[in-house]
Amino acid sequence: MLNRVMVLLLATVAAGMVSLSNAGLVELESVPVSSDSQDCLSCHEELHPGIVSAWRQSRHSRITPGEAMQVQGLGLKVSSKEIPERFLNVAVGCAECHTQRAEAHAGTFDHGGYEVHTAVSPKDCATCHTQEADQFSRNLMAHARGNLVENPLYMDLARTIEGRVARKGQQLDFTPADPLTQAESCLHCHGTKLEVMGFKERDTLHGLMDFPVVNGWPNQGVGRKNTDDSLGTCGACHNRHQFSIEMARQPYTCKKCHVGPDVPAYKVYSASRHGNMFSTHGKEWNFTNVPWTVGEDFTAPTCASCHVSLLADPAGNEIVPRTHQMTDRLPWRIFGLIYAHPHPVSPDTSIIRNDEGLPLPTNFDGTTAKDFLINASTMAERKENMSTVCRSCHGSAWVDVFWERFEQTVQTTNADTLEATKIMTDIWKSGYAVNHLAGGSPFDEAIERRWSDIWLFYANHIRFASAMAGGGDYGVFANGRYHITKEIMELNEWLTTQKKVKGGQEGKE
Amino acid sequence: MLNRVMVLLLATVAAGMVSLSNAGLVELESVPVSSDSQDCLSCHEELHPGIVSAWRQSRHSRITPGEAMQVQGLGLKVSSKEIPERFLNVAVGCAECHTQRAEAHAGTFDHGGYEVHTAVSPKDCATCHTQEADQFSRNLMAHARGNLVENPLYMDLARTIEGRVARKGQQLDFTPADPLTQAESCLHCHGTKLEVMGFKERDTLHGLMDFPVVNGWPNQGVGRKNTDDSLGTCGACHNRHQFSIEMARQPYTCKKCHVGPDVPAYKVYSASRHGNMFSTHGKEWNFTNVPWTVGEDFTAPTCASCHVSLLADPAGNEIVPRTHQMTDRLPWRIFGLIYAHPHPVSPDTSIIRNDEGLPLPTNFDGTTAKDFLINASTMAERKENMSTVCRSCHGSAWVDVFWERFEQTVQTTNADTLEATKIMTDIWKSGYAVNHLAGGSPFDEAIERRWSDIWLFYANHIRFASAMAGGGDYGVFANGRYHITKEIMELNEWLTTQKKVKGGQEGKE
Amino acid sequence: MLNRVMVLLLATVAAGMVSLSNAGLVELESVPVSSDSQDCLSCHEELHPGIVSAWRQSRHSRITPGEAMQVQGLGLKVSSKEIPERFLNVAVGCAECHTQRAEAHAGTFDHGGYEVHTAVSPKDCATCHTQEADQFSRNLMAHARGNLVENPLYMDLARTIEGRVARKGQQLDFTPADPLTQAESCLHCHGTKLEVMGFKERDTLHGLMDFPVVNGWPNQGVGRKNTDDSLGTCGACHNRHQFSIEMARQPYTCKKCHVGPDVPAYKVYSASRHGNMFSTHGKEWNFTNVPWTVGEDFTAPTCASCHVSLLADPAGNEIVPRTHQMTDRLPWRIFGLIYAHPHPVSPDTSIIRNDEGLPLPTNFDGTTAKDFLINASTMAERKENMSTVCRSCHGSAWVDVFWERFEQTVQTTNADTLEATKIMTDIWKSGYAVNHLAGGSPFDEAIERRWSDIWLFYANHIRFASAMAGGGDYGVFANGRYHITKEIMELNEWLTTQKKVKGGQEGKE
Repeated sequence: MLNRVMVLLLATVAAGMVSLSNAGLVELESVPVSSDSQDCLSCHEELHPGIVSAWRQSRHSRITPGEAMQVQGLGLKVSSKEIPERFLNVAVGCAECHTQRAEAHAGTFDHGGYEVHTAVSPKDCATCHTQEADQFSRNLMAHARGNLVENPLYMDLARTIEGRVARKGQQLDFTPADPLTQAESCLHCHGTKLEVMGFKERDTLHGLMDFPVVNGWPNQGVGRKNTDDSLGTCGACHNRHQFSIEMARQPYTCKKCHVGPDVPAYKVYSASRHGNMFSTHGKEWNFTNVPWTVGEDFTAPTCASCHVSLLADPAGNEIVPRTHQMTDRLPWRIFGLIYAHPHPVSPDTSIIRNDEGLPLPTNFDGTTAKDFLINASTMAERKENMSTVCRSCHGSAWVDVFWERFEQTVQTTNADTLEATKIMTDIWKSGYAVNHLAGGSPFDEAIERRWSDIWLFYANHIRFASAMAGGGDYGVFANGRYHITKEIMELNEWLTTQKKVKGGQEGKE
Repeated sequence: MLNRVMVLLLATVAAGMVSLSNAGLVELESVPVSSDSQDCLSCHEELHPGIVSAWRQSRHSRITPGEAMQVQGLGLKVSSKEIPERFLNVAVGCAECHTQRAEAHAGTFDHGGYEVHTAVSPKDCATCHTQEADQFSRNLMAHARGNLVENPLYMDLARTIEGRVARKGQQLDFTPADPLTQAESCLHCHGTKLEVMGFKERDTLHGLMDFPVVNGWPNQGVGRKNTDDSLGTCGACHNRHQFSIEMARQPYTCKKCHVGPDVPAYKVYSASRHGNMFSTHGKEWNFTNVPWTVGEDFTAPTCASCHVSLLADPAGNEIVPRTHQMTDRLPWRIFGLIYAHPHPVSPDTSIIRNDEGLPLPTNFDGTTAKDFLINASTMAERKENMSTVCRSCHGSAWVDVFWERFEQTVQTTNADTLEATKIMTDIWKSGYAVNHLAGGSPFDEAIERRWSDIWLFYANHIRFASAMAGGGDYGVFANGRYHITKEIMELNEWLTTQKKVKGGQEGKE
Repeated sequence: MLNRVMVLLLATVAAGMVSLSNAGLVELESVPVSSDSQDCLSCHEELHPGIVSAWRQSRHSRITPGEAMQVQGLGLKVSSKEIPERFLNVAVGCAECHTQRAEAHAGTFDHGGYEVHTAVSPKDCATCHTQEADQFSRNLMAHARGNLVENPLYMDLARTIEGRVARKGQQLDFTPADPLTQAESCLHCHGTKLEVMGFKERDTLHGLMDFPVVNGWPNQGVGRKNTDDSLGTCGACHNRHQFSIEMARQPYTCKKCHVGPDVPAYKVYSASRHGNMFSTHGKEWNFTNVPWTVGEDFTAPTCASCHVSLLADPAGNEIVPRTHQMTDRLPWRIFGLIYAHPHPVSPDTSIIRNDEGLPLPTNFDGTTAKDFLINASTMAERKENMSTVCRSCHGSAWVDVFWERFEQTVQTTNADTLEATKIMTDIWKSGYAVNHLAGGSPFDEAIERRWSDIWLFYANHIRFASAMAGGGDYGVFANGRYHITKEIMELNEWLTTQKKVKGGQEGKE
């Protein structure tokens, strides 16, 4: 019996019961911590035990960059070819990240004799992870803040959502939100701009100390503008200070910004077959192996499997390379602005102008601002990249029909949006609401908000359900086709009623 | 200390830490794979490592039907008394399922010398699982496709939800959805009809090969019509190719189609006390033991415990038998069509006609199409079946009051629906909307969609909350009573406003 | 190799893989069960194996109060200084709870020679857990039932939500819900009143026996009024009969009543960074250690960490004491009634009267009923209590800005509610709807329900998102700022349309 127990136990360890091996490694391994980082820990371990403990559980505390660089083949996690000498043989500790590149960061301050910056940026991470930082700089998400705040039309929508409202006569008047509110609403996910405003003295256990006052901090938004002018934060997905690859590979980190209803990725995934498999069997999967082996490490994809991760087959062959650009496997941008469309060429979408001169990737009639969007050949390439992932578990016929249905859904949801926009245009033309062409905003009246429900929520649900689940409730009754048709009915009824009411009024005049 | 560790370890193994024993068994056991299946694996293991790996983790790969038939008592999983000789002593591999009954399947094609069919049907599974296939054929869900597409009234509703919309004058015109869209919306869950349309040559690693073109494929809808004319797919709940009993017993597989808001089973469960216990303690439960022992294997029910599974008490006595018919323990059908009602007698509900001649289990006034529904005595029997499950953890008084409250909720939600339907009927009679009696559809105008919200969403939430949780947010603020009363208020206000507006118009004319 | 395996295994056990040690302990330990409880078990183990098994897995079955009292320091779980002799050296079994304080409970009945009461109350639990029962008696939740049913304004709202609706002329008439419905809707969470109505004979395995008929039973609502006139039930969070501290510390038990949209705590948490960390890494955390050590037992908070639990740092120092009052760390009450406001002084909120004489903590203009609410100094104290928890993982600047943003969000959501209330007040004053000042109800018309959406759902989502996540989807697109502004637009449009329609009508008259 003993024998069998041992074999079982070994099998378990081999199968990667992560909690077990992680817990074990903490005891078994240790790597030198730099004296600088030891200095940090001497105070902060007591002050903030939570984050120090998270770091102690991280890979950063248990392997040196020098050791990590020795890994051969697909398992290599450190993409930089050269790493400064001083980082090579110590754990990646507090000081290694928060004191490097001091001169590059505004707001670097003297803290117990160290030149410290609070917010670590992708350029800091690039010291060891050059390739990932480089790919991420081409990721739309790194530009999430600029793509919002540099787009006057989107900021007009933001004003009517998060701004202050007051009645002026019979109209509502919206003024832009204050910075505190912005940091809690749109910019929470899109990212704030970190601006050093000065310094402030604070009484600490070690007496009076100066700390920078940084507008926009704290923020972990994926498109944050950092104190070294770099864009984005790796911590949006790889949560500080554990920087766990497991967290980035499980769907919950994506949920933080993509719970919907605007981008209902998590909800749709969790009700999909893939999501069901993850929920049932995920506890037995290995979320830390690199490369990530289909079938051995997991039997159904998470968000990361399809969009980011380096995948291998059980023979150790690469299926698809890792990408932190994320659009490499995505031909279509299915988030409705206001129609689904081929992905933009540049991750900076604020440069886009449609035929009407508006900063939108499509025109109001659904045609595209095609000079700014990828062409058919790039779309085909990306489609093939994603199909390669699909075919790890699905036959070619399955995959082909998946795309056929998905692209049909892109067309039908765009057609629904067009029908709704035609009604809305009639409403604007008839003067029942006032849009940008008539000196107003297309977003600040109740009927306009019903129109935006259609492309911002319902069309997106249908497309995400198609993309991730092949259908199901989110394609029909849960903010899906039931709701898109209902809202079109409501728009139409509203217009009809306005005509009747107007008729009534004319009768009076 | 060693001793204690060993005892702990053995206790753990005994307590069914599934990941452990499963992972272990892969190493420890192996059963012969037929040469046919070995042939399949020789290509497909490389092509689709994900599904092959899922199969390797399945029970099908680790025990032969012959061995499985030897199990005595409640643990028997193979219900067929006789199984063809060729299946007895090999793993249930690719060829065993995909090449059996070749002649019964349209679209069977020559594939490397084998007569293969793509979609395995319940009649294929019945080779070993006769009883389950037989019960499932009497399950409403096996008929889910026909019950929708053979019901002209439901298809009229479907047309207004998933169909193409266009304005004709002031009206909206809906045309039925194309097949690609249907497969992504209603039929994704209800099931498509698999139709072999011909064959198509495709270039493969082994040169040019012919593959069937099957309309409606892929689809895992529970009521799929198969190429052998059988109904349903076991894979809807027992996901290919792991066919995991654990997956079927955890609530996530049900969530795929029952996330709501039409049938909000998963949402309500996950917020119920039962769901809380599953979420907190489920990781310690055993989801693979057969029979499934209350208290030992689990301490709170999942969907399967109450509706499907063979349950035993710790002494090994059967509490309730396994049923794949699922209605055996259900007196009431609480999904509103348009009222809650006693369950239909036949799983084929397309045969039902109410007093008005419509294919509905109730009349518009809430009375039932009683000849087609189970009688009081069958209801009492089913209620007792479910109560037996409840009493595993709850006293008789608890169970009795549960039913008393639940049946009161059936009555009050039906009464609310009736009140709403009376207002809607007034609207139709007044000519403010056009229904089927006046040559139109009762589903294609905004006000009609508000009426359908009431019985399709809100009344259902309240009843599911009652049935699974005894109340809570889903019975009140989360699409519950708050919303059903609000929508009735909206209907009433709409009618009142129409009368006023009409008054205004008449003033003009 | 053996050595490493052993070390790993010990590390695992030490790291608190709960299922392992729990399962192990069942085998390893046993404490004497009183003969009374053995008597209970002799029948009920067979009758209701589920709950008996849950109890066998509980701490109550595996340690005697006498042993538990010996624990020194922060690990002490039994707060009573003296416990009656008869409980000291036996497991806390059936009889210990259900037969103690027999005389205090109405409905105590003779059951096989024992004086039994069905529903165990906090005063029963206080025998061992004095301090927790005492704190809980000052918890708003213990008063949840009275705070609803003794408040005529809230009961007026309840009437329009859960009551029976019927048309009278053009108006809707609402009558209060029957007791069965109440127990399934509002009182499911708020708690019923348990009233012994008499006794009923029932045929059992042991022949005819008398059982009490208790109105309001079953119910696990947190503010239940018990048969000994005490308030609340510990079982609302510590589910019977496992009474698991793990359940109370995981967020699912809170979800039962706080899934939203009225109090969307669970939804917001699960999409927050804290929730993401729990979802990804929670399976490796220890949910049973007392005290609960930040960084060692867990690396991100659950509901309990911030609001209830005794927390320690890794050095064993107390960070914050345990509290079952729960408001100790809460300055603001962010559930909109109808504005966010400082917490009430008394947990009995039915005594509050605002300047208008209404039982509301604020006036309709947003000013507070300040004599009934905590003052600035108490608010500051509670804020510091919570900040102490935050600083376990976050620096002072982070925590300070958190509060600054949160309090800004309290102000802006109150301002939005005020703007909506001004429009609503215009509607009432113009006679388009009838409120309490005009002899009606402010809750029973469609437009009034839209107004209540604003403060009951949307403002709450925004504030909870701010409080628990610092923002994100629930602050914007998921019932957040997008919806609060939309509904204000709808209110304004409705008023404008009424004026037009009225104009039209006047034209006719």
